[in-house]
Amino acid sequence: MKTNTERECYMPAVSDRERANILAEALPYIQKFAGAVIVVKYGGHAMIDPELKEKVILDILLLSSVGLKPVVVHGGGPEISAMLKRVGKESAFAHGLRVTDAETVEIASMVLVGKLNTEIVSLLNAHGGRAVGLSGHDARLLVAEKIQMEDVDLGFVGEVKKVNPAIINCLLAEGYIPVISPLAGGEGHEAYNVNADTAAGCIAGALKADKLLLLTDVRGIMRDVNDASTLLPFIDRDEIPALIADGTLRGGMIPKAECALSALDLGVRGVQIIDGREPHAILLELFTAGGVGTMIG
Amino acid sequence: MKTNTERECYMPAVSDRERANILAEALPYIQKFAGAVIVVKYGGHAMIDPELKEKVILDILLLSSVGLKPVVVHGGGPEISAMLKRVGKESAFAHGLRVTDAETVEIASMVLVGKLNTEIVSLLNAHGGRAVGLSGHDARLLVAEKIQMEDVDLGFVGEVKKVNPAIINCLLAEGYIPVISPLAGGEGHEAYNVNADTAAGCIAGALKADKLLLLTDVRGIMRDVNDASTLLPFIDRDEIPALIADGTLRGGMIPKAECALSALDLGVRGVQIIDGREPHAILLELFTAGGVGTMIG
Amino acid sequence: MKTNTERECYMPAVSDRERANILAEALPYIQKFAGAVIVVKYGGHAMIDPELKEKVILDILLLSSVGLKPVVVHGGGPEISAMLKRVGKESAFAHGLRVTDAETVEIASMVLVGKLNTEIVSLLNAHGGRAVGLSGHDARLLVAEKIQMEDVDLGFVGEVKKVNPAIINCLLAEGYIPVISPLAGGEGHEAYNVNADTAAGCIAGALKADKLLLLTDVRGIMRDVNDASTLLPFIDRDEIPALIADGTLRGGMIPKAECALSALDLGVRGVQIIDGREPHAILLELFTAGGVGTMIG
Amino acid sequence: MKTNTERECYMPAVSDRERANILAEALPYIQKFAGAVIVVKYGGHAMIDPELKEKVILDILLLSSVGLKPVVVHGGGPEISAMLKRVGKESAFAHGLRVTDAETVEIASMVLVGKLNTEIVSLLNAHGGRAVGLSGHDARLLVAEKIQMEDVDLGFVGEVKKVNPAIINCLLAEGYIPVISPLAGGEGHEAYNVNADTAAGCIAGALKADKLLLLTDVRGIMRDVNDASTLLPFIDRDEIPALIADGTLRGGMIPKAECALSALDLGVRGVQIIDGREPHAILLELFTAGGVGTMIG
Amino acid sequence: MKTNTERECYMPAVSDRERANILAEALPYIQKFAGAVIVVKYGGHAMIDPELKEKVILDILLLSSVGLKPVVVHGGGPEISAMLKRVGKESAFAHGLRVTDAETVEIASMVLVGKLNTEIVSLLNAHGGRAVGLSGHDARLLVAEKIQMEDVDLGFVGEVKKVNPAIINCLLAEGYIPVISPLAGGEGHEAYNVNADTAAGCIAGALKADKLLLLTDVRGIMRDVNDASTLLPFIDRDEIPALIADGTLRGGMIPKAECALSALDLGVRGVQIIDGREPHAILLELFTAGGVGTMIG
Amino acid sequence: MKTNTERECYMPAVSDRERANILAEALPYIQKFAGAVIVVKYGGHAMIDPELKEKVILDILLLSSVGLKPVVVHGGGPEISAMLKRVGKESAFAHGLRVTDAETVEIASMVLVGKLNTEIVSLLNAHGGRAVGLSGHDARLLVAEKIQMEDVDLGFVGEVKKVNPAIINCLLAEGYIPVISPLAGGEGHEAYNVNADTAAGCIAGALKADKLLLLTDVRGIMRDVNDASTLLPFIDRDEIPALIADGTLRGGMIPKAECALSALDLGVRGVQIIDGREPHAILLELFTAGGVGTMIG
Repeated sequence: MKTNTERECYMPAVSDRERANILAEALPYIQKFAGAVIVVKYGGHAMIDPELKEKVILDILLLSSVGLKPVVVHGGGPEISAMLKRVGKESAFAHGLRVTDAETVEIASMVLVGKLNTEIVSLLNAHGGRAVGLSGHDARLLVAEKIQMEDVDLGFVGEVKKVNPAIINCLLAEGYIPVISPLAGGEGHEAYNVNADTAAGCIAGALKADKLLLLTDVRGIMRDVNDASTLLPFIDRDEIPALIADGTLRGGMIPKAECALSALDLGVRGVQIIDGREPHAILLELFTAGGVGTMIG
Repeated sequence: MKTNTERECYMPAVSDRERANILAEALPYIQKFAGAVIVVKYGGHAMIDPELKEKVILDILLLSSVGLKPVVVHGGGPEISAMLKRVGKESAFAHGLRVTDAETVEIASMVLVGKLNTEIVSLLNAHGGRAVGLSGHDARLLVAEKIQMEDVDLGFVGEVKKVNPAIINCLLAEGYIPVISPLAGGEGHEAYNVNADTAAGCIAGALKADKLLLLTDVRGIMRDVNDASTLLPFIDRDEIPALIADGTLRGGMIPKAECALSALDLGVRGVQIIDGREPHAILLELFTAGGVGTMIG
Repeated sequence: MKTNTERECYMPAVSDRERANILAEALPYIQKFAGAVIVVKYGGHAMIDPELKEKVILDILLLSSVGLKPVVVHGGGPEISAMLKRVGKESAFAHGLRVTDAETVEIASMVLVGKLNTEIVSLLNAHGGRAVGLSGHDARLLVAEKIQMEDVDLGFVGEVKKVNPAIINCLLAEGYIPVISPLAGGEGHEAYNVNADTAAGCIAGALKADKLLLLTDVRGIMRDVNDASTLLPFIDRDEIPALIADGTLRGGMIPKAECALSALDLGVRGVQIIDGREPHAILLELFTAGGVGTMIG
Repeated sequence: MKTNTERECYMPAVSDRERANILAEALPYIQKFAGAVIVVKYGGHAMIDPELKEKVILDILLLSSVGLKPVVVHGGGPEISAMLKRVGKESAFAHGLRVTDAETVEIASMVLVGKLNTEIVSLLNAHGGRAVGLSGHDARLLVAEKIQMEDVDLGFVGEVKKVNPAIINCLLAEGYIPVISPLAGGEGHEAYNVNADTAAGCIAGALKADKLLLLTDVRGIMRDVNDASTLLPFIDRDEIPALIADGTLRGGMIPKAECALSALDLGVRGVQIIDGREPHAILLELFTAGGVGTMIG
Repeated sequence: MKTNTERECYMPAVSDRERANILAEALPYIQKFAGAVIVVKYGGHAMIDPELKEKVILDILLLSSVGLKPVVVHGGGPEISAMLKRVGKESAFAHGLRVTDAETVEIASMVLVGKLNTEIVSLLNAHGGRAVGLSGHDARLLVAEKIQMEDVDLGFVGEVKKVNPAIINCLLAEGYIPVISPLAGGEGHEAYNVNADTAAGCIAGALKADKLLLLTDVRGIMRDVNDASTLLPFIDRDEIPALIADGTLRGGMIPKAECALSALDLGVRGVQIIDGREPHAILLELFTAGGVGTMIG
Repeated sequence: MKTNTERECYMPAVSDRERANILAEALPYIQKFAGAVIVVKYGGHAMIDPELKEKVILDILLLSSVGLKPVVVHGGGPEISAMLKRVGKESAFAHGLRVTDAETVEIASMVLVGKLNTEIVSLLNAHGGRAVGLSGHDARLLVAEKIQMEDVDLGFVGEVKKVNPAIINCLLAEGYIPVISPLAGGEGHEAYNVNADTAAGCIAGALKADKLLLLTDVRGIMRDVNDASTLLPFIDRDEIPALIADGTLRGGMIPKAECALSALDLGVRGVQIIDGREPHAILLELFTAGGVGTMIG
């Protein structure tokens, strides 16, 4: 991969005429996605590296500026862990999930909504955007139920049971960019942590989104994770069980694949697993001939 | 004052017929405020005492349900201090303001947006409301500039310079209840803490609100703070300088009075300083003959 | 029952704080009926007693002010009889219906539209409402056919054949309170008297109203009309034939029950027979825990 | 003047081709008045003669059908007198006005709203129209004050003080034809009789109507009432005082001229006094080259 | 047939009173067609004779002025031939269709869009209309495919495959009169000539028009073309095959009948073949009792 | 200047990553012009060279796709001359203007509307656009008066006297791209040729356009037309008289400068004279840092 430094050194060599040409060549892609609702699950390395972060911000703004309707759902596991550590809160884990007591969910909320969401909104708006932060509590956007385990009480870890997308549609209709934290209310006023990939999938489904883009820290789904040439550019949803069975899909990719499946079932037109470590991965996927990552359709 | 226990013991004695009568007698007040935008600055004791908190929540929901348009702006100083203490962050103060470095403003944001705002939204929605949380960053609702002091650098303490109320109007038009945290963006993507009273005043002004209700921990403006009978039910805005001069207004009431003046200058029809320690103070003020606190008009 | 005098004597004892509490406790009911279309058949004693009349007016205004959409259909038999008598017009009756010649229907129209409807509209508006009077002629709201009897010509007594609710929906959308007289046009420009209960039922059906409230001069449907304790608070629509067969429903209650059945068939969600002699019966039914009268669902 | 019989005998001789030609020749007039608000004061002989009545109805429907917005304000003095007589109510008169006690205003309301208005609405709708009856009470369309005389109490005879035309505009926007009775509410819920010409003028003014047509029982304003050739086809508003001074305007024409003046002052573009005894006088005025009566502009 | 001169000589004899009567008598027809979409295929003699042309223009304007929604589709064969001749372009014909090379289709476009359409639009607007010219290229209103013949290449003669009526509906909603030339784009940017009758039928179908009026140079469908008394005023669509079989429908009437059938299949309510040589044929058909030509329904 | 061949050879060397970068770098320009109305006067070499033509088409489509509102006004002098020559029509000239008899204006209309406009619309739509062709006749967009000369009758050469931009705004609101031919109607239905630059200026003025781009066959306004380095990138409107006086502005640039002045006077924010021979000149001007040509502001 070309490093950022190389690319930036190269930039001055691109003349205005070439720029104009390249813009004109993006026209068919822009036309194809006119008015499309694009849900972007934003997480991983691209949320940490400041340079990548800025490029994601620019990508989202460009989508919005050229007539698409991006909706951002962000994660934030590492930041939550850091804050818990800072306040001296130890966490137990069970089945790979953090046991989440009332204090933990409060700290998660502070980090997700008060820090990360605010920061994303602030960056988008500082670059000329009109972003509005939401959590699943706002207008009861996400309603969850407690995940029940037989052997352990996970506390306030929830599963999304209902999406009320009216507030998102209201904001999209006025040209705002919604940025959503993966928290949900319960039947009462208790708060739940929900998995960000799943939240993004449910939201995309409720919006009948044209595309769900999952920013990950891998190139896509690969037969051999160490061999870029084994990337699968397209997977049919029916192939997924076999890919799990043969171990192509494993670890953290399994929940992502399941989230993709459920989003497709809910009416999302396509799910794309892309590499958030690639600068401008979103534009690469949507507005160039090549595309990136793995499409699940 | 009658204690809550006394009142509640009394309740069963109110028959359905009396209830119906009382509802009917509230009609003129409800008609008077039909469609009115009411900005409620929510802070102090009423944000801490769980019972009072619930009553404020119900009051706001009732306003919304009977056709008024409440907008909540909340404070949160004590909670910020507690969190700073918890993470072992010491604060310096100057001119009565906290010196706010980048870490402090981040923690303030986490507490205000991620904890307090989320909690208020969640409570409103658990009681059947349709609330949406905002901070000054959302859609650049509040734009601030750094407060410059000659002798000290206060850090990220800002003064509101511009209000973009479009997002509030968009939410009000759809029947949502906006709940706003007093944070603001700067020209770039830096974040500022802003005074909650002042933020409420600026927002009320930008909305040309019908009323700004300031929930405080006093009965109103009193000639003698130890003598309830000296409460001033109405002050003309022109009297305020004299009241400051003669010491009737002093301490924390001075910024509130100044906020009231500036809100009135911006077109707010009336500002009311009410006692948040009084259960249902908002309903008392708006929907009963008596009213409470001090009106500045 | 407590007399009006007793209640009013009692009133001063209700403090503003208790009032605020009671308003707050009405919130769940107000939320439950937000936006609901409530058709009120207004007749009987509550149209004659000036004190009851004013309370019905206030009830309807309160419904409208707190976000419900009341539609009033009024009766007026006794006033028509009085006017006929005054002008020296004798009426024949057949099958319990007045034989209605052209002059009679003209006088009925004068009394219903020109006197009673005008008076209700005028009272509502004098108390701050925005009421608009309609008869079945307006925008062809009610179209009737002559009721044919084998043995007698009843004249201009009609049966509603069609409801054109567009004018009602137009007025409701703008926040007006429609007040409707039970007259109908025929295919040409002839005028018919129609039964007010039936008209209310048809209108409620055409509006798919949330509730039809029938104000009567009885407590509801009672097994023993002389024993208040035998009131049936709820009747399933399927029980009605049996209740007619066993004599529980008899006399004037039979047409009301039939009207309820047909309204339910047309899509009205619930029909409530309430006692118009009870002050604020409408508020009691909708906004208190107890409710009154008999619900048919 | 050609009698109706002559014209009707002649009709069959008008071929379809001639009809088509004549329709085409009306185009410029229809274009000229597209969207125009035309207030028609309907009274006099044209409200009594059934044949004339039907022609007025057809004229109003044609205006509405070809894109104008007619608003009808009707009178009804003779019918009120007849009804008062019928119920044995004697009236005193003072300054040419009926002394109007509560009973009289009630009977006036019955006759105007319950009989005449209902009949006009019913006729319009029977011919395919979408008319809706209103009185000044509806949505507080007309608010009046009692006319105070030094020497006599006229009772409920009012002067229009305020027009709230929102309900008319609401109905016009939906394509309805408003038909208005000249009654008005007071500050409370008392009812007043108001002069129909004046009411029409005030309503036309509040609507900024394009034209106010006053249907009268004279050919227009004539220098010599016995000589048709002295008809004044156009009077400038400034000439009116002189015409009163020299006796050209006298008797019942003076209030009509004054009503015209005040309507013009309120922004009505033109007032036309036309002869309601002439069949299709409204169409003659608006849609033929000749025009009829006297224009005051 | 009465000559134009005769009719015009006669006109002065029609008094304003008779005109008013005739206008009033047109009311039922105007009411019947309120809001109706009327597609007028304009061609033949009525496009050449200046006097007839003006009458068609007036007819269309009258429809538009009295609340109908006319859509004009025009032909222009003779003018295209004249222009081709003028520039010295010879045409071959095959199967009765002109072999249309690129130069021919360009000249057809110039004549249809640049001359005839512009002229119709200009005439409508000079008489007070608000007409807008369109061709099948505008907003891809008409998309065609090349007509394939086994034995000959007809060049750019197309068959309509798709109608995108959004632009027409957009113009009708704003009160404009669309005037459409029978040209169509292909999949790329090639241009096709399409048959004007067929284009009118497809457009009427896509609009679910209330009526398609085909202006022709015959009186309608006649059993014996030389005997006016054999005109068929109504044909059921099922009779058409038999009428073709027995020779009643022959020559140029066969494609018109087929166009009518396909329009009816697409949801047009009625197709009328009328005689464009008859002045005001459109008004005669729509607004008089007699009607003209042959209705296919 | 780099030839097209060179650039195209170069293209494959631009990687998708570079493309994504370049798109992201265009964001500030796209944001700056969001919703802006851009009137493009399209003429000269760029209307003749097929490759340039396609690039202009793509530029306009890109503007439309990324949220600007382009309005195209085209010229066509050379094509009119060619057609006149082809039909053997000789033209006289006076004061540099073609003496335009009825036949000439008809041929101009055919070429402008029927050929050039249709072709531009067709090309835009073949590339995925939603363009609609208009001439000044449509909805009386352009109303002209005959240009009067003392010594010669120029025939149907008009000067724009009035612009009715409603039809353009109607199309823009629905997302269509209006393409306008410089023809105008007179008071009656006569047709006038109008200067395309002037028409573009008047239309831009009536629309209060954000920018008027004049595509010319020069690099802009240059002190020395043979020395590219003397290009004036910005001229203040006040400098124009001096530039005419000193000969910097001469020949065909004088009317363009005058058109710019009048557009600025009418409220257009900026006028840009750009070189239509430059591929993608419009994108270069609007979406790159460099810009091209001369800005008059």
